[in-house]
Amino acid sequence: MTGEFIVGVIGAGRIGKIHIENLLRKIPDVNLKIVADINLNDDLKRWINKIGAPRLTSDTDEVFNDPEINVVLICSSTDTHTKFIQTAAKAKKHIFCEKPIDTDIERIKESLFVVEDMGVKLMIGFNRRFDRNFMRCHESIASGQIGKPHIVKITSRDPAPPPIEYIKVSGGIFVDMTIHDWDMARFQAGSDVKEVYATGAVLIDPEIGKAGDIDSAVATLRFENGALGIIDNTRQAVYGYDQRVEVLGSNGCVVADNEATNTVRIYTAECTNIDKIPYFFLERYMESYEIELKYFFDCLRDDKIPFPTGEDGLQAVLIALAAQKSYEENRPVKISEINK
Amino acid sequence: MTGEFIVGVIGAGRIGKIHIENLLRKIPDVNLKIVADINLNDDLKRWINKIGAPRLTSDTDEVFNDPEINVVLICSSTDTHTKFIQTAAKAKKHIFCEKPIDTDIERIKESLFVVEDMGVKLMIGFNRRFDRNFMRCHESIASGQIGKPHIVKITSRDPAPPPIEYIKVSGGIFVDMTIHDWDMARFQAGSDVKEVYATGAVLIDPEIGKAGDIDSAVATLRFENGALGIIDNTRQAVYGYDQRVEVLGSNGCVVADNEATNTVRIYTAECTNIDKIPYFFLERYMESYEIELKYFFDCLRDDKIPFPTGEDGLQAVLIALAAQKSYEENRPVKISEINK
Amino acid sequence: MTGEFIVGVIGAGRIGKIHIENLLRKIPDVNLKIVADINLNDDLKRWINKIGAPRLTSDTDEVFNDPEINVVLICSSTDTHTKFIQTAAKAKKHIFCEKPIDTDIERIKESLFVVEDMGVKLMIGFNRRFDRNFMRCHESIASGQIGKPHIVKITSRDPAPPPIEYIKVSGGIFVDMTIHDWDMARFQAGSDVKEVYATGAVLIDPEIGKAGDIDSAVATLRFENGALGIIDNTRQAVYGYDQRVEVLGSNGCVVADNEATNTVRIYTAECTNIDKIPYFFLERYMESYEIELKYFFDCLRDDKIPFPTGEDGLQAVLIALAAQKSYEENRPVKISEINK
Amino acid sequence: MTGEFIVGVIGAGRIGKIHIENLLRKIPDVNLKIVADINLNDDLKRWINKIGAPRLTSDTDEVFNDPEINVVLICSSTDTHTKFIQTAAKAKKHIFCEKPIDTDIERIKESLFVVEDMGVKLMIGFNRRFDRNFMRCHESIASGQIGKPHIVKITSRDPAPPPIEYIKVSGGIFVDMTIHDWDMARFQAGSDVKEVYATGAVLIDPEIGKAGDIDSAVATLRFENGALGIIDNTRQAVYGYDQRVEVLGSNGCVVADNEATNTVRIYTAECTNIDKIPYFFLERYMESYEIELKYFFDCLRDDKIPFPTGEDGLQAVLIALAAQKSYEENRPVKISEINK
Repeated sequence: MTGEFIVGVIGAGRIGKIHIENLLRKIPDVNLKIVADINLNDDLKRWINKIGAPRLTSDTDEVFNDPEINVVLICSSTDTHTKFIQTAAKAKKHIFCEKPIDTDIERIKESLFVVEDMGVKLMIGFNRRFDRNFMRCHESIASGQIGKPHIVKITSRDPAPPPIEYIKVSGGIFVDMTIHDWDMARFQAGSDVKEVYATGAVLIDPEIGKAGDIDSAVATLRFENGALGIIDNTRQAVYGYDQRVEVLGSNGCVVADNEATNTVRIYTAECTNIDKIPYFFLERYMESYEIELKYFFDCLRDDKIPFPTGEDGLQAVLIALAAQKSYEENRPVKISEINK
Repeated sequence: MTGEFIVGVIGAGRIGKIHIENLLRKIPDVNLKIVADINLNDDLKRWINKIGAPRLTSDTDEVFNDPEINVVLICSSTDTHTKFIQTAAKAKKHIFCEKPIDTDIERIKESLFVVEDMGVKLMIGFNRRFDRNFMRCHESIASGQIGKPHIVKITSRDPAPPPIEYIKVSGGIFVDMTIHDWDMARFQAGSDVKEVYATGAVLIDPEIGKAGDIDSAVATLRFENGALGIIDNTRQAVYGYDQRVEVLGSNGCVVADNEATNTVRIYTAECTNIDKIPYFFLERYMESYEIELKYFFDCLRDDKIPFPTGEDGLQAVLIALAAQKSYEENRPVKISEINK
Repeated sequence: MTGEFIVGVIGAGRIGKIHIENLLRKIPDVNLKIVADINLNDDLKRWINKIGAPRLTSDTDEVFNDPEINVVLICSSTDTHTKFIQTAAKAKKHIFCEKPIDTDIERIKESLFVVEDMGVKLMIGFNRRFDRNFMRCHESIASGQIGKPHIVKITSRDPAPPPIEYIKVSGGIFVDMTIHDWDMARFQAGSDVKEVYATGAVLIDPEIGKAGDIDSAVATLRFENGALGIIDNTRQAVYGYDQRVEVLGSNGCVVADNEATNTVRIYTAECTNIDKIPYFFLERYMESYEIELKYFFDCLRDDKIPFPTGEDGLQAVLIALAAQKSYEENRPVKISEINK
Repeated sequence: MTGEFIVGVIGAGRIGKIHIENLLRKIPDVNLKIVADINLNDDLKRWINKIGAPRLTSDTDEVFNDPEINVVLICSSTDTHTKFIQTAAKAKKHIFCEKPIDTDIERIKESLFVVEDMGVKLMIGFNRRFDRNFMRCHESIASGQIGKPHIVKITSRDPAPPPIEYIKVSGGIFVDMTIHDWDMARFQAGSDVKEVYATGAVLIDPEIGKAGDIDSAVATLRFENGALGIIDNTRQAVYGYDQRVEVLGSNGCVVADNEATNTVRIYTAECTNIDKIPYFFLERYMESYEIELKYFFDCLRDDKIPFPTGEDGLQAVLIALAAQKSYEENRPVKISEINK
């Protein structure tokens, strides 16, 4: 691709704001033209003004109809993703879409078909792939340093549950929270998943159970390449945002630990103390959003396929739905059962 | 109990020798009188002589019939355990028996009945409970420091597979290797297991597959107290004997890592190097055998119940058999299915 | 102070650029009006243009004569510092000045007198005080957690020597490189230094010796509060930029280690590998410059004294000169010998 | 040397007991014949009996006059060392002598002369050289992995001061406590020391000052090979026995850290906790005494020179006396000033 990137952003919630800020401050050779959000309010207007974004509108069509805009960032709510992907693709604009694409397999497939048909690029926002530790882990495996992957282990724990109102519409822990881990598992294993067994419990807050969800979960995976996987999740790790990855291979093992708040150790007559790990995802992952977006535009510039692709986005949702079914029926579920 | 302990040891293979050495060198107030091993050979005779053990015989009845002997250590092959437990119990001798008790539930139960009936004490040799790191982990949980256990994670990896001949008679990975982990899981969770799902693969050596076994395994557990568990095993972690435990609780998380070979870090222009972790179980666990045996005799001396009990030994086997069934039928299996 | 801060920057070399970038991107409520640099060239013009700075001039007087400008950042070469401090102070502008203030004690004292006389604020850019690890270390000591400081240890090693031309005009290792450590020692000990003994050698590059300097140095300190200190420096630690602080106190010890490049460990059959530590000071300290500058403006806003003060800047130079004399005469030198 | 080693031990205090226990339990092919201690008492008799030592006497001449005994371990008080070394050497017995040899340079030299003249072997008990971490550190340097040593750093801190009565007769911190560090510095640098500057203070206990000693010290070294060294000591590190070594070289840096009590980390909502490091030297160094003694007998068996030699013992005392003089006169002191 030649020429400049003129960008429109759809959705200026928490994640949209992160991308807008990175566009304006970290990727100076890209041009943000319009931010569209259906929920215009004074706070948002003030924020957009302060950050220096050129134009804010509540009409998403302004973005799609602008012939100058050649890249769209979709950061709106999940239920609008496939509609916007298709509209953007048909308008011949490249697309960066937040995860998950959707929770309906058919809508996802239809969208990916349109994307392919229109010949635009689509990248899904699994930012954790761009965390420096998980990237380094992936590189080590991809370079063959630890041989063939045998067991992939993911620890993924939130520091505190979201509001119960959020839980109710989240689609369940396997779709809402583990979605990142399904993608991470595939990313590190270098393989699709064949079968999943997921189980869980309500151990944190009975209200989560009343809302029809669970707050603690473990899952085992069988990958197409023969490797095995295990994941554990909790909605509440009181000591902080605990995000670790480990891959055992035929020639070694690679372990990505949590980031530390600082490197200080305090030795006293009682014990040795370290400050606790960073509390929430913005502290741990902020840098990954920046790297992710830079990588996306680099791919556009060099006419390369940006990963994770729409297919990666689809696979993560397939595993999530299989895990949900596995949990409900308490049996291992093949991905092929879901992906008919 | 008053008076002195006069000890007979049945079986002087690898593990028997460890206990004999500890008895002679580390527990001076205990009296080793007879070592019985059905496979007398010159090597063993030389070793026994060198170590300074008083008497070696191939006749195990010498131990059971000696009225002075009041404690028996059973370190013979697994298939002889229940027979010797019952004989020792009927001779009113206290018993320390290596793990697993047996692989037949009925024989185990019968033996435990005899033990209880005769009023002798029985401790099962799950030495890993006495590893300083796993003990510290357990203490932290038992003291309430991390609250109620939610997720128990065990990593248990051997550096290299045993000979294929051993694999063939081992009873399978879940009985032979994971047996320690089933016990560790119960020890750390402070709860019995309710249901297990186990899966695995042949990733290391096709010969292991031909022998009807797997060499890599993952399992998830549901405990009676509501907690969840995950275990991963491999017969071959080329970087050493990898043994870790982690317990997430409602108020925190406790992690027991591997021991280091030394504390040295070498920083060069290429990378930072640490020597690899100790290679095999004797390097990691030698101290635990000594602590285990001292604890056993302390319990006898103070007339306390020594843990892990026969019931603990039974539970580990129940989970192992449930895991084996789970693997074979690819579905979660309740312990109650096995323990009819 | 009320109202807005209108800032002029003197000097847009490496360190000046860092501050300009932070002013524009990280401290949005502060107004950068003029950048003055006597070495205007096309590269600098392009950079200033790209970064979005409003005005670039080669005439420093534009800054001092602008009545709107109330804060000056002095980032020019060391020999110009005292002149600009005095000019700025007389123009009633607050001052942030890079370290070292100067190498001439009389000029420093004269400047501090003018600053005090004019009632403006002066902060010296010892950015390492704002490194999150050294700050945490200081907090721990200041809070009394480790009791009274007894021994302060500083490891401060550059990855590679600067060009020999730089060495020749640097003033020597104790003034050029250790200057940060003299300040760090006082910051952590919470005390002035009474006496210093410094020694060193040419171990890296004979050219450094020919230039009349040394490339490796160790020093011991005696603080006014009775504590002891040790510092070690090298111009070349091939494994990276090694910056550590440790303080032993009457009730414990606090240790601030290096930052890691990532948290990944790779375990192989040969050894365990960690990526080497970050290579140079911009990677380690970039964040500290931002925190430093924000703190400076916070102090102006709240009318508080910003630390490190001009007096702190003076003390660091006094120790550096005492160390130089100590090295030359191979004897401990009291600060009072220098500060007549 | 052919045939068996028949050993006599002189002195059965704390350190003598450690060696006696190791002789009896860990070095079975060596024959302990006589233990001589001038302070026979019931406790010692009981201990000797329990441990299974063959003969206890208060007459040291029994050892020297026994023609069967060919190895003597001198573990008596420092003031008796040179007398016993000479007597043993003249009786043609090999000698292992505890550190320091003596505090009088002339007596040491005379003894080394007798040892050389009689052609027996003499090893000095600097056990820390046999600590697995410091050995590994030394190996790394000796193998050239970090290039030429530039800066040697030793941290050596006791957890609590000895009784004041001990301090009074100890010869001062530099002879009594730092003696190990002088040897360690030479061991790691692979070079003799040329000059030392030592300073210190009374920061822990004024009684130590009244006894004419200091309780906190720092020293800098210049080695013959050009390397620099720094050492810090305290009589009281409340968090445990802190023993670390670090060597910066031209191609890297090797760091030997403290041993951990266990590998457990406890993460809570407040902070992360690690148990404190082992409290005293027996916990840290017990293994080193065993390795040391085995190495000594291996050298005798293979007719190799056992290190550290008598010359190593002499050098450590020379540095200690130079350090003491340096402290008293507050100036760097050359070793050649002491070693006239």
